[in-house]
Formats: sequence, C-alpha cells, structure tokens
Amino acid sequence: MGQVVQNIPRAEAEIVRQLGEAGVATVHEAQGRTGCLASYMRPIYSGARLAGSAVTISAPPGDNWMLHVAIEQVQPGDFLVLAPTSPCDNGYFGDLLATSALSRGAVGLVIDAGVRDVRELTEMGFPVWSKAVSAQGTVKETLGSVNVPIVCAGQAVQAGDIIVADDDGVCVVARETAATVLEKAQARGAAEAEKRARLASGELGLDMYKMRERLAAKGLTYV
Amino acid sequence: MGQVVQNIPRAEAEIVRQLGEAGVATVHEAQGRTGCLASYMRPIYSGARLAGSAVTISAPPGDNWMLHVAIEQVQPGDFLVLAPTSPCDNGYFGDLLATSALSRGAVGLVIDAGVRDVRELTEMGFPVWSKAVSAQGTVKETLGSVNVPIVCAGQAVQAGDIIVADDDGVCVVARETAATVLEKAQARGAAEAEKRARLASGELGLDMYKMRERLAAKGLTYV
Amino acid sequence: MGQVVQNIPRAEAEIVRQLGEAGVATVHEAQGRTGCLASYMRPIYSGARLAGSAVTISAPPGDNWMLHVAIEQVQPGDFLVLAPTSPCDNGYFGDLLATSALSRGAVGLVIDAGVRDVRELTEMGFPVWSKAVSAQGTVKETLGSVNVPIVCAGQAVQAGDIIVADDDGVCVVARETAATVLEKAQARGAAEAEKRARLASGELGLDMYKMRERLAAKGLTYV
Amino acid sequence: MGQVVQNIPRAEAEIVRQLGEAGVATVHEAQGRTGCLASYMRPIYSGARLAGSAVTISAPPGDNWMLHVAIEQVQPGDFLVLAPTSPCDNGYFGDLLATSALSRGAVGLVIDAGVRDVRELTEMGFPVWSKAVSAQGTVKETLGSVNVPIVCAGQAVQAGDIIVADDDGVCVVARETAATVLEKAQARGAAEAEKRARLASGELGLDMYKMRERLAAKGLTYV
Amino acid sequence: MGQVVQNIPRAEAEIVRQLGEAGVATVHEAQGRTGCLASYMRPIYSGARLAGSAVTISAPPGDNWMLHVAIEQVQPGDFLVLAPTSPCDNGYFGDLLATSALSRGAVGLVIDAGVRDVRELTEMGFPVWSKAVSAQGTVKETLGSVNVPIVCAGQAVQAGDIIVADDDGVCVVARETAATVLEKAQARGAAEAEKRARLASGELGLDMYKMRERLAAKGLTYV
Amino acid sequence: MGQVVQNIPRAEAEIVRQLGEAGVATVHEAQGRTGCLASYMRPIYSGARLAGSAVTISAPPGDNWMLHVAIEQVQPGDFLVLAPTSPCDNGYFGDLLATSALSRGAVGLVIDAGVRDVRELTEMGFPVWSKAVSAQGTVKETLGSVNVPIVCAGQAVQAGDIIVADDDGVCVVARETAATVLEKAQARGAAEAEKRARLASGELGLDMYKMRERLAAKGLTYV
Repeated sequence: MGQVVQNIPRAEAEIVRQLGEAGVATVHEAQGRTGCLASYMRPIYSGARLAGSAVTISAPPGDNWMLHVAIEQVQPGDFLVLAPTSPCDNGYFGDLLATSALSRGAVGLVIDAGVRDVRELTEMGFPVWSKAVSAQGTVKETLGSVNVPIVCAGQAVQAGDIIVADDDGVCVVARETAATVLEKAQARGAAEAEKRARLASGELGLDMYKMRERLAAKGLTYV
Repeated sequence: MGQVVQNIPRAEAEIVRQLGEAGVATVHEAQGRTGCLASYMRPIYSGARLAGSAVTISAPPGDNWMLHVAIEQVQPGDFLVLAPTSPCDNGYFGDLLATSALSRGAVGLVIDAGVRDVRELTEMGFPVWSKAVSAQGTVKETLGSVNVPIVCAGQAVQAGDIIVADDDGVCVVARETAATVLEKAQARGAAEAEKRARLASGELGLDMYKMRERLAAKGLTYV
Repeated sequence: MGQVVQNIPRAEAEIVRQLGEAGVATVHEAQGRTGCLASYMRPIYSGARLAGSAVTISAPPGDNWMLHVAIEQVQPGDFLVLAPTSPCDNGYFGDLLATSALSRGAVGLVIDAGVRDVRELTEMGFPVWSKAVSAQGTVKETLGSVNVPIVCAGQAVQAGDIIVADDDGVCVVARETAATVLEKAQARGAAEAEKRARLASGELGLDMYKMRERLAAKGLTYV
Repeated sequence: MGQVVQNIPRAEAEIVRQLGEAGVATVHEAQGRTGCLASYMRPIYSGARLAGSAVTISAPPGDNWMLHVAIEQVQPGDFLVLAPTSPCDNGYFGDLLATSALSRGAVGLVIDAGVRDVRELTEMGFPVWSKAVSAQGTVKETLGSVNVPIVCAGQAVQAGDIIVADDDGVCVVARETAATVLEKAQARGAAEAEKRARLASGELGLDMYKMRERLAAKGLTYV
Repeated sequence: MGQVVQNIPRAEAEIVRQLGEAGVATVHEAQGRTGCLASYMRPIYSGARLAGSAVTISAPPGDNWMLHVAIEQVQPGDFLVLAPTSPCDNGYFGDLLATSALSRGAVGLVIDAGVRDVRELTEMGFPVWSKAVSAQGTVKETLGSVNVPIVCAGQAVQAGDIIVADDDGVCVVARETAATVLEKAQARGAAEAEKRARLASGELGLDMYKMRERLAAKGLTYV
Repeated sequence: MGQVVQNIPRAEAEIVRQLGEAGVATVHEAQGRTGCLASYMRPIYSGARLAGSAVTISAPPGDNWMLHVAIEQVQPGDFLVLAPTSPCDNGYFGDLLATSALSRGAVGLVIDAGVRDVRELTEMGFPVWSKAVSAQGTVKETLGSVNVPIVCAGQAVQAGDIIVADDDGVCVVARETAATVLEKAQARGAAEAEKRARLASGELGLDMYKMRERLAAKGLTYV
C-alpha cells in the first residue's frame, strides 16, 4: 500500500476514441462478452458515451486522499477509476475534485462507491458512473495506491486499460487487446446495421439467424 | 420446459387501452390493492403510461433464445413479459430485438432481469420496465417456454393477462376480470377528481374522510 | 404510540431558507460530516434544492393513516418526514395527499418507504425523497404518532429539525444548531469558490492543501 | 381479499412423505429444475427434511391475523405457507402460534417474512424456513385470505401443493404431478447412488457422462 | 466528534438482568412493539440471551480506534454498541479486543458492521450481534465518540440504555422506562404460559382471543 | 473463453498448510490488510480452517459444465474457486461433484454463487464457502475456462494462488508472496499471544499501544 506508479502505458488515442464511439454493449460483445462492471454502476446523467485510459485508485473506505494524488498523474484523455478496499458508499468526489481533474484533461470517473455534487457535475458535463450518490464526506488520513491493479465492481482493471462507458454501464478493455477489440467491434457494428434493416422489415430472428432447426432438435414443441 | 403456446386469449383492445390510461396506481386499487410487481421494476425512461396483453417468456439465466421464439407469437398490442428461472441481471434485450418486436406490433417489455441499448430504446420510444440495466450479453443454448404461466417480480402472470405500466411501476390484471377492473378504476378516477378539488381548497382528509371519530376511538391523543 | 404533538418549535424561516440554498453536501460538512440520511434515499425528480422544518411521522408498515393526521399539523415551510416502524416499500403518498399537503404549505416529503403518482407529483413540483417508488397502496387501520422523535433512513430526527434536500440526498440539522451550522456552511461556500478558481487554473490539490509532506511522512512512494 | 377456502384437495400422505425423504435438490431436478423458492429462504435450524401439504396464507405487511384463521384449516401433515402482500420482515410467527399449529398437526412453516422465538421453536422441533428472523411483532387489523393461490419467494403455490423443505431450501410440487415427480425423484436417487460409487473410485465426470467429445466440438482448448 | 462522555447513568443491575431473562420478543412487545434493531443483526452463535447497559460508540467507516477508548469506560455488566458513521462491513472487533473487554466486565457487543475471530469469540463465550462477519481489518486514524447518542441498525441508542439480545435479535430499552417495561414484560410472560397451555390442548386462537365476530364484521367469508 | 490451463505452478505444500493454520484474519493482516473476499462468502458449516492452491473456474450463469473439466485438473491439496461471469445464486455444486473432487484430493470449494446438498457435504466434511445455498440446478451447455485469472467475490485470483478459509471468510494470497506472508503471519501470531495475556490481566489497549498522546493530539476530549 501507499504506492504511486507514475509512468503507465496508454493505448493510442484514436483507438480509445473509437472504442468510446462503439459503446459498451458492442465492445463487450466484441471481446467475447467479457469486461462489464457490475450493473449497479450507473451514470449520474444520461447520454454520455466515451472512453479513456484508466488511472486506477485503490482507496480505504471513507478516505479520498488518494484522489488528490491520482489527479497529478492524469494526462489528457484519462479516466479515473476508484475502488475502495472494502464496500463504502461515501461521496469521495465532488465538484472541486472534478474541477481539478478537468483542468488536467480527465474525461470522467468510474467509482465503486459514492459521488456528490451531482447537480454541479452534470452542469459541468463531467460524467461519473458510481454505485451511489451520497453527500457523506470523507477524511484524508490513510494511504492507498495509484496505478496499481485493482478490482472495480467485479472487474480487474490495470492502469492504462481502456474504460468504455455509456448509459448501459461500464466495460474495461485490456490495453494489449484494444486494437483487436476495436476491429471486431466495428465489424459487429456494421453487421448490426444490416440486421436491423431486415428485422425492421418484419423478418423474424428465427429465420434470419436460422434457429428453427436447432430449436426443434433441442425439443421445442408448439401447442 | 421447451413449450410454446400459440393461441392465447386476449382481452378486448379498447379495454386494454383504457386500463393503460387509468394507470398503475388506480388499476391496482381498483382490483383490491393487488397485482403490483416488485418496486425494483423501473422504467428505462420517464413518461410512458400504457397497457398491453402479456406474451409470457420463461427463460434460463443468461440465455435469451426464447425472446426470438416469443416475438413470432406477438400480435399488435402485446406486451412482452420475461421472467428468468433464477435471478439474473444480464441484458437479455437490446435495440435489435426491439426493432423486431416493434415490427410485430409489440408495445413494450417487462423483464425481471437486465436490458441494454437503453439510449437507443429511448430514442425508438420502446418502453421497458426492468430490474437492471446491463450490457452483459446472453447465449442461445437452452430452451425455455413461451405463453406459459410465469412468476415475474413477485406476481403470477398468465399469457393474455393485461400488463399496465407507468412511472409508478407495473401491475398485472387477470384477463377475465379486465372489464370489471376497468369499470372500478374509472369510477375511482372520477371520485378522485372531486376529492382533489376539495383537498386543494384546504379541506382536510381528516374531515373529508370523517376519520376523527375513529382515530379517537383507537386512542389517538393530542398533546 | 398514537400520540400527536401539536406545538413544535421551528427554526427561523430565513435560516431554514438559506440552509436549503447551501445544499446537502455543504451543510453536512459544516456540521462535522454528520446528518446525512442513507444514500438509498433518492429524489423522484432532479433539480430540487430546499429546506424545511420537520413534521415527523412514525407509521406502521403498510398503513398511511398518520399522514392525514400529520397534514393538519403542517405550517407553511414544513417538510413531512415519515419513517415506518419496520421496513416497507409501499406507496404511502400520492397526488391526493400532495394536494392536501401543498394547500397547508408543505414544501416536500422525505419517506423511508415508497411513494406513488410520481408523474403527477413531478408535474405539481412537489419534491419527494424516498426509498422506493411503488404503486402498492396502504390501509388506514393502526395508529402511529406525529411529531415524536423518529429514526429515518439511519438518522435521528426531532420535530422541528431542519431537513435539507437536493440531488445529493437528504441531511438533517438539529434545530438548536441551525444558525451556527448555517454560518459555517456559508463560510465554507465562500472558501470553496476561491479553491475552485485555483483548481480550475491547474493548481493541484496536493499543493493547494499542502499534502505532499504529510503523504511522504506516511510513507507514500512513487515508482 | 378476505376469503377462506375450507375444503382443499391434498395429495396422498405416503406420496408426500416420500417426497420429503427425497429432498429438495432431487425433487426439483425430477420436475425439470423447477419449483425452488428463492435462496434467501433459510431454515431456522439445520437437519430437518420433510414435506407437507400447503395451507396458503396471503397476509398484509405487519399483520398476522390470518395465521390464526389458517390454523383452524390445518389437518395433520399440512405445511403452513405465508406470503405477505408486500415485502416485510416482521416476526409474524412465534412459539404460541407454533404450539397451536402443532396441536392441529402442522408439520412446519414456510414464510416469506420474519419469524421469532427461534430458540423455542428449535427446542419444540417446529421447523421454519423464512426470509428473516425478527422479534418485531405484528397487528391483527386487516383481512387476508387462506387457501387462495399465492406467490411465495418467487414461486406460485396453490393450496394442497406439496412443500418439500430441507437444508437446501424449499421446493413446491404441484399436487396433480406429485406421483409422477416422486417416481422420477426415486429413479434419480437410485441412479445417483451408482454414480456416486464410480466417482468415489476416481472415475471422472468427463468420462462417466461422456463429455469430452461435446466439449471439443464446442471449442474447448487445453494449453 | 471526538468526545468521550465518562459518567453515564445505568439502570439497576437486577432490572437489567431480568430484562435479559425476559428476552427480546417479550421485551419489545412490553414496550409497545418498539425498540427492535434491524433484522440483519444476527448473533455469531446461538443460545445467548442477556442484557447489559449500553456503552455507545460512534466510529468512522473502517476505523476501530474508538473501541480501545470505549473499553476504558466499561463497567461490569456493560454492553458495547457500535455504529459506524456510514455503512461498513469491516471486522472492527476480534479476540484481542474481546479479551480486553471481558477483563473489564463487558457482557457482549452489538455492532452495525463486521466482526472477526468468530471461532475464538465463540470459544470464549463472548456474544456478538453483528451485520457481518469479516476478517477485513481497520485502521486507527480518525476520532469518533463514546457514550454519545447514536443510531444503530435503525434504532436510536443512548449511553446507559438497556440492550436486550438473544437469538431473535436485539432490542433497546430506554433507561428511564426500564422498570416499567420489565413489569409489563413479566406480566406478559405469565399470561403467555397460560395461553400456551390452552393452545397446546387444541383450543384455537380464534376462540381464545374471541376473534370470530370481529373477522366477520370486517367481511371475512368462508367458501 | 473455453480454455483450460493444465500446468499451473503451486506453492510449497508445507507453506500452504501453515497459512491455513494461521487463519484468515491473521494472514490478511500479514499481507497489509488485503486479499479478503466479500463478507457475503460464508461457510456451509462452522469450524473448518484450511488452505489450498487455487484451481480457478470461470463459468457462465446457471452452467456448471466447467466444474467437471476443472476436477480433472485437481491435484491433492487444491482448492476449487469458481466465479460466474455474471451474478448467479444457482446451486452449481453438490454431493456428487464433491465425491469426485475428494477422490482427486481437493480440499474445498469457494464459489461466488450457490451450493446444494449442504447436509451431505457437511457429513462428508467437504468445506464450502459460498454466496448462497440453493437447490436450483444448472445446465451443461456453454464453455467457460479453467485456471485463468478470475475475480471472485471482489478479489482477483490466479491459478495457484493460496486460498485461506475459515469461519471469518476467505482470503487469497499471491503464490509469489506466500513464504513472506507466512513469515509475517507467524510473527504476528506470536506477538498476539503476548498481547492477549496483557489484555486479559486488565491492561488497557490505550496503554499497551500507547495511544493516549496521539488521541489527545487529534483532539479527543473527555467530559
């Protein structure tokens, strides 16, 4: 504990940006239905869809000291990702920290705990995905770590991994696989456009995906 | 397991439509304070208030195959209702399935599990009441059933029952009692308008409902 | 049980109003990070920020009789605060009660249970913070009490205490300390404005709060 | 609401008894992996394994009046099954009601709410499966119903259905299918004995169930 | 914050002892069905039934420093009662603290958080009622308070109040009313013995409590 | 997905054994208060205290196929550790699988899902720590992976890591650090014995740990 890793690798900015455009559902499918954080992670406002490079924070319950330490490590395009070392719903982050994070180029925050000043954060357009909204403040007494591997809302996150977030939640992509995942996500996106048109015209998924035979083989009966 | 019931009875379309107009709170009161699904069932966007005939789906955890099967059974005005056979928050349903369901005339989805593509569903105006929002995808490996009796979020639902849903949640009305319930709901709605006017003018519920004597008899004391 | 306290002390209206303006996060910090209700208490719509004097209600599970009794005790500027005697998510309160409460001058409701008619309440601009939204109605059979000390969502509340509520949740301020807390809240608000400007200009919290030495003393290492 | 059905059909006593012997896991498998109540239903003490015929109770939150009504309907071998009409963890049932239920021949209680006097119930050997243990008492003010269809912990239960319960939880078997389910359960039990012996001797499930080919076909790779 | 109240009033030892004998369910009924802590507060082992005088502790999340401070304030017969200032499941207390508490005469611990070393505590016979069992340790960095009013698991507790605890959970009795509550509890206990005998002999609650007429008046129907 | 890693490194058997003896609370402190799984992971019976080498399993919700695959990889002293790819409480594991696992030398199971046949497992002495007890069975349709990195109940686990489990829960120790952690754990255990004796004799933690000065410096006041 009490360690700050200063130089972390990051994926290419354009790949990160395009993963954000692809969105959480598509990206998580593209990497084999993996990477989604727990569904209790919800955005404080609707409509944001973006990606960034993870600056990870491991913090004690009820102590937000490491957020100040982490902000110094932020580079433009980074996504703050905080996991408390045990469950906590305190409001670790509010408009002052957001002001500071924004001035460093941070694009958002994912926090497996609480956030506050949500009206101000919404007005500032600083997107946050959190477990809770809570005004309950924190202390600055105990060290944690920055840019070490963490588990956030059920997913392992390494510093520099890509965080994709939108109204469907949050997904993490390993930095090493980012280019491959993007490629698959874009292929998937293209295929979906065609499927959407066919379904809209009334074609059934049963026929489009040729499911009838397999369903019958499994024993599905119609009465 | 593995059964699709093809011909289900449905209530008269005009009765269904008017139950939707009456709304969840009024309808559930009209049938003796019964039929509400658990309060964790929340709409993905505000403002929808409608009713439809239930096409029920019993599906394994993490497997949305039966949604494709169910959509073939949809007739205009139907409300898809899915219950997993054990608790699951996966995103069983997204914009492709919604496109297909809409092309068959479905009016919405009630799902005791997760939904994804909520931004797209909101833009399409396809209303969903769910336990969770989650991008986590599902497989198509195991059979379930369509139009069999299910328990969804604490309420038993038969195929063809009327599903009423709005910002207050979801209520189910047995098909056989739909006309009677509607009559009572409309009577209740009319009575409420008069009460609202009296309360707005400053009359107290204590007087309007003649509660003072009964409260005193029970022993209420003022100090 | 079964007691209504009729004459309760209230804080000065102007103090109450200004506490509302200060908001939940600032007020709770100003009183030493105390007073926040549990984070599951959420507003039915965004954007309200206000304060009022608590009219407290202790009610049995599934029984909203005491709300009618409480409304008679409401004076302009009062905030209804209801705690059930055991956990319950029923919809104790809807648009008829809100109409009545508004006609007496109530400014809002905090309820550690459910609320219904949320669309109508939103249209009326009657703000509610609740544990749940639920259409499930209640009976009027068992006495509770009004203006007695209660515990609501984890906080002790006395009749006449000040309830501050906004998008971050709900905070209670003891009536006796209201003036002092307001003073501290306003001082804090002023200090934050200056800090915000410095952080926006790129100054780090590490420097502004002079944290580096203390972090090093605790053993923080950079690698 | 407010209805007591007096003459309910029951399954043959010997079938019920043997379903109890088979246990929850085996019985639920024998009927196609259906019928399990939610996993939060836990026994107040370990070691009971039994079955009985359901006497169903629908009761308001915080009101145990209908338990007294239901006990008059109990015949030897019956299993009381209570579902509140909305979530409640109150202690509806304690040693006095158990004494009364025992004198009528009841074999146990399944309650999707709370129970109290658990030390006394354990000493009496009266088994209970519940959502909660809570001393919080209830009132007797509002009617419910007895022997009507209910939903208990996620499963629909009809009066006269067979309730099987043990340390693994609770399962409901429709009365009409009891004999068939028992037959399958016993066949399954016999088959398991042989499998157990083979597995104990070191044979792998991969070989015994001939899974290797299907795993390979699905694409499982060994590295 | 950061205050230790040293001289607290305590109820007479014999009254406390007898409240413990009466047990949680009886005591909470005797004081009008009030005082029960939330049902998630469970004993780490079965069979303890006792009472003690509350030494209250308000502690930050993840910080058990105040337990050391509190133990100095313990007198023989005291019951430690800890509430964190926001939800936390850390193991604040283990066998070393129990050894120290025992040496001062503490009779047990009620903690709305976690406890650890439960095997050792069980062997020592030191009873604990907690929200969680967790090995996760805590720090000693931030002050809390001892013997101030707290809210623990939904109930307000003052230092010197009587804590009654057994397998049904935990109940708090205000010190001022302890003698009266004990009197009512003992009367209730005596009345229950007679009722138990009558119920055991087959008399129905419906008759013993003369409920039939009132049920009929409410509209209960038998079919 | 669909990968089985066959040759995994394991820590020295004697180190693993001694970590088990040290127990969860001591081991997690020895590695800097890290490694504890979420507190909802509870043993199916009391009294087991042991350690083993993790054979990890990533399995789809409601599908236990990979357990059969994993058991082939088990060597004497291994601890099965299963994490579903999304939340699930199904009973993935029962007495047949335990029989098979035992025959290979497995020492226990940690599962962030459900387990069944708990009476039989208890009789066999096969210890399990799980999120739920549930009879609900699973299918064998979809691949998962064995001996890949997983996140189980909030902790990242690598194949070959050491799992320590007892009545306080479960802790994971990275294989590379096992020897160091054991050393610290044993030192800690020795130190605790001495402290226990001093506390038992009445010495206060305030004095033994020399806390008084630091408490005063932080501002603790006695009144």
